[in-house]
Amino acid sequence: MKILISNDDGIDSRGIYALAQELKKIGDILVVAPRTEQSAVGHAITMKIPVRVTEYFHNSDFFGYAVDGTPADCIKMGIKNILKTLPDIVVSGINNGANSAINIIYSGTVSAAREAAIMDVPSIAVSIASHDPNDYSFAAKIAAKTVITILKNKVKTGTLLNVNIPNIPESEIKGIKFTSQGKTKWDDVYEERIDPYGKKYFWLTGKLTNEDLNVNSDHAAVLKNYVSISPIHFDLTDYEMLEKMKEWDTKELL
Amino acid sequence: MKILISNDDGIDSRGIYALAQELKKIGDILVVAPRTEQSAVGHAITMKIPVRVTEYFHNSDFFGYAVDGTPADCIKMGIKNILKTLPDIVVSGINNGANSAINIIYSGTVSAAREAAIMDVPSIAVSIASHDPNDYSFAAKIAAKTVITILKNKVKTGTLLNVNIPNIPESEIKGIKFTSQGKTKWDDVYEERIDPYGKKYFWLTGKLTNEDLNVNSDHAAVLKNYVSISPIHFDLTDYEMLEKMKEWDTKELL
Repeated sequence: MKILISNDDGIDSRGIYALAQELKKIGDILVVAPRTEQSAVGHAITMKIPVRVTEYFHNSDFFGYAVDGTPADCIKMGIKNILKTLPDIVVSGINNGANSAINIIYSGTVSAAREAAIMDVPSIAVSIASHDPNDYSFAAKIAAKTVITILKNKVKTGTLLNVNIPNIPESEIKGIKFTSQGKTKWDDVYEERIDPYGKKYFWLTGKLTNEDLNVNSDHAAVLKNYVSISPIHFDLTDYEMLEKMKEWDTKELL
Repeated sequence: MKILISNDDGIDSRGIYALAQELKKIGDILVVAPRTEQSAVGHAITMKIPVRVTEYFHNSDFFGYAVDGTPADCIKMGIKNILKTLPDIVVSGINNGANSAINIIYSGTVSAAREAAIMDVPSIAVSIASHDPNDYSFAAKIAAKTVITILKNKVKTGTLLNVNIPNIPESEIKGIKFTSQGKTKWDDVYEERIDPYGKKYFWLTGKLTNEDLNVNSDHAAVLKNYVSISPIHFDLTDYEMLEKMKEWDTKELL
């Protein structure tokens, strides 16, 4: 089994290292990841400037390829120019911080998995609900088991599994929940500051709002100590609205 | 009516200028747009570095606010720090190049409208199917009519309208089609080149594949000379797959 691994925290992050160590027990791995952190980069791709790729080593051991680009770039580059064939699966992570509810939209981790889904390759995104987790080993084990499950159950092409794991000891995990994307979102605030030259600048902060506490949604499931697994696709059409639009008078639009 | 205008081609682009000129006939406009081109930036937001905002002038006339950031940043900044209240509608564009089928995923233009949808503000993204259009006036008129229609018909919160306009004379337009996101996508190729210092670099190119010729999808409708309007939302859950996953054995995952 050929497993392509990427992330958005960068190739030197602890999460991708733990993931690679676990996944090489079940398959033949290739790591292609951003050289630098690419959090909140969404599904950006690099088109206006060139992309560079170099080998990356842990001490003197080859670990993978570092790409000057986004998570989506890494998947394109890994499949088209390094592997030159489709892998059996793409795994993105392990991300520091949950990628649930509205954060799925902003997530680079999810976008790497989505880029694989666009190429009809099965894929999963794996995140742990802490920005500074003590331990990635449970999350890495869940990732490996999800890889086996997704291949056995044949998830349909174009759909990825988005896995979010609570940052608690394994013994406190209540189980697995298959969830939908929750409605929790951010109420943004820009902090206004003054630079050393007297000029204003702004820094994005915010707090969660519209907390969706339905345990069948991703954000709430993790809060309630479940591993959350959501099927995510990239057909963004609102079919319910499309049906309603049939009643609109198109003459008003021309 | 308060209209917030943004784009991804940058505040100095012809498309946003044409859009602003048309929309100020029907409402009170505010332009908040990226200082530099942000095409293919997806739904990236700026969190790791500060964001700056400055007034932008055409000759000596105030035109709007230029943000050192992404299209999504512009909507957050425009609503939270400049307007300080919700506008009646957000309009993003007029983009050079269609944002249909898979391009919706990569589009900065659509992400500005999506950021508004996340804030429960009605919004539209407007693109013209040419990277060097001669004339934006028809597209700008369609944008204004879509604004009036969306407000009259009360599109549900969380859903934006993605408008794509063929680059042909108005007299050749066949009509309006309400469409779904097409399945056309890119077969990526990285061109390998050598820099002046003898080092390899790669440039993303590609060709369209899986051409979806169903005229009820966005890409095909535009090819067939229709104005395409698609309702797009940000709930990425694949509910059909979620239903099937109920048959999975969760014990295998823990």
